[in-house]
Amino acid sequence: MKVDSSIKQKYSHETEELADFKVGVDNVIFSVDTTYNRVLVLLRKRAEEPFNNYWSLPGTLVRQGESLTDAAYRTLAEKIQVDNLYLEQLYSFGEPGRDPRENPDSFGIRYLSVSYFALVRYEEAKIIAKSDKSTSWYKVDEIPNLAFDHDEILNYGWNRLKNKLQYSPIAFDVLPTEFTLNEVYQLYCTILGEHFSDYSNFRSRLLKLGFLLDTKVKVSRGAGRPASLYKFDSEAFAPLKDKPLLFI
Amino acid sequence: MKVDSSIKQKYSHETEELADFKVGVDNVIFSVDTTYNRVLVLLRKRAEEPFNNYWSLPGTLVRQGESLTDAAYRTLAEKIQVDNLYLEQLYSFGEPGRDPRENPDSFGIRYLSVSYFALVRYEEAKIIAKSDKSTSWYKVDEIPNLAFDHDEILNYGWNRLKNKLQYSPIAFDVLPTEFTLNEVYQLYCTILGEHFSDYSNFRSRLLKLGFLLDTKVKVSRGAGRPASLYKFDSEAFAPLKDKPLLFI
Repeated sequence: MKVDSSIKQKYSHETEELADFKVGVDNVIFSVDTTYNRVLVLLRKRAEEPFNNYWSLPGTLVRQGESLTDAAYRTLAEKIQVDNLYLEQLYSFGEPGRDPRENPDSFGIRYLSVSYFALVRYEEAKIIAKSDKSTSWYKVDEIPNLAFDHDEILNYGWNRLKNKLQYSPIAFDVLPTEFTLNEVYQLYCTILGEHFSDYSNFRSRLLKLGFLLDTKVKVSRGAGRPASLYKFDSEAFAPLKDKPLLFI
Repeated sequence: MKVDSSIKQKYSHETEELADFKVGVDNVIFSVDTTYNRVLVLLRKRAEEPFNNYWSLPGTLVRQGESLTDAAYRTLAEKIQVDNLYLEQLYSFGEPGRDPRENPDSFGIRYLSVSYFALVRYEEAKIIAKSDKSTSWYKVDEIPNLAFDHDEILNYGWNRLKNKLQYSPIAFDVLPTEFTLNEVYQLYCTILGEHFSDYSNFRSRLLKLGFLLDTKVKVSRGAGRPASLYKFDSEAFAPLKDKPLLFI
């Protein structure tokens, strides 16, 4: 991309008035229901304007004295109870016009969204019940029209999920603590598409990395032979943490 | 991390007043001087309070109607002229207290920094001259005390650079358009440390990826035998773009 005097010129004609902002955090919270082999996203139904009654990513506006991460945890804690949580900052969305409240006859200020990416275990996460069912898991391939630019934010989170699955052990943050190798493979298939790898290559690559622990317990799932249950061995993974790794 | 009722309780005692923000963009701009084998960061000296006379990352505050990316390009175009530029959003820093202007007896509002990560070719980038030498390249291992939390932002950018070097072809965005394989290796050594790989393994892995084009031109650099000049072949790389790759 060229950055030259034409860009400077473009800006010399614009106002130099600074924009005023409120800052929101919006969370893309993924989990996986291994029983039905579904990747899920937590959504909540808005009960206020703008976008009243639209589904949206769970979010909140940052309060005085509150850090961005604390705001992300606060809105999470209002929606679900979880024991373990993987959370990282995703991306900031701040285009002019992304929020109708920017309109001069509304609040007349910009709204910036700092989005967060979270992974929780489906069977551990309890939705904090409200009688109005305003918080719910949605299958990633059956997402309704979302409020604001939340479809774009969700899409960004989905790409981060795909990317991290290839280079990091985040699969083991969403799978149950004990799993069969086939369940890991199914998770990868669901997110990366069926043709990312065949099962036997995937299986041998994963075992060679050396951080999956065979619990020696066998389970029968479906019609096949009983399969071993594995655990993620974080001690065995520790020396690999800063090494470049490929999982597929 | 546990997210439970104690966190909710913590927040129930806090003010629910929303914070007001100005939003800045700060750019971590890297280049590489292959002649002297140095990784460089562009810094500018502040000429205003707070942190008057401190070196800082080149940045600006977002104006009315301006997107975050446009603000990043605007401040870049004020500091350097470049033909090609790799730019991506890095991370948003928004801790309470990160900017002294937040103080009630100053402006009394929060300042959020959306940071950007940029790569430019050293020999193509011209610093837009000011007689006061307020913009300058600094070696990454000789950075002065920076204003605000810019040391933290720079460190975040440095880690992104290391990470991307392992998984993506960004080296070829900072190297000259024609380079020897030894120059690629030296760049990796400078950023990842000397022991990341030995030269012959690195060289064969890189050539096997299949996107380096031998120009058949040989150059003599230093005492060794003349070495071939290579080019990054973006057409050969295109089908690999979305595949998981390891560069070291």
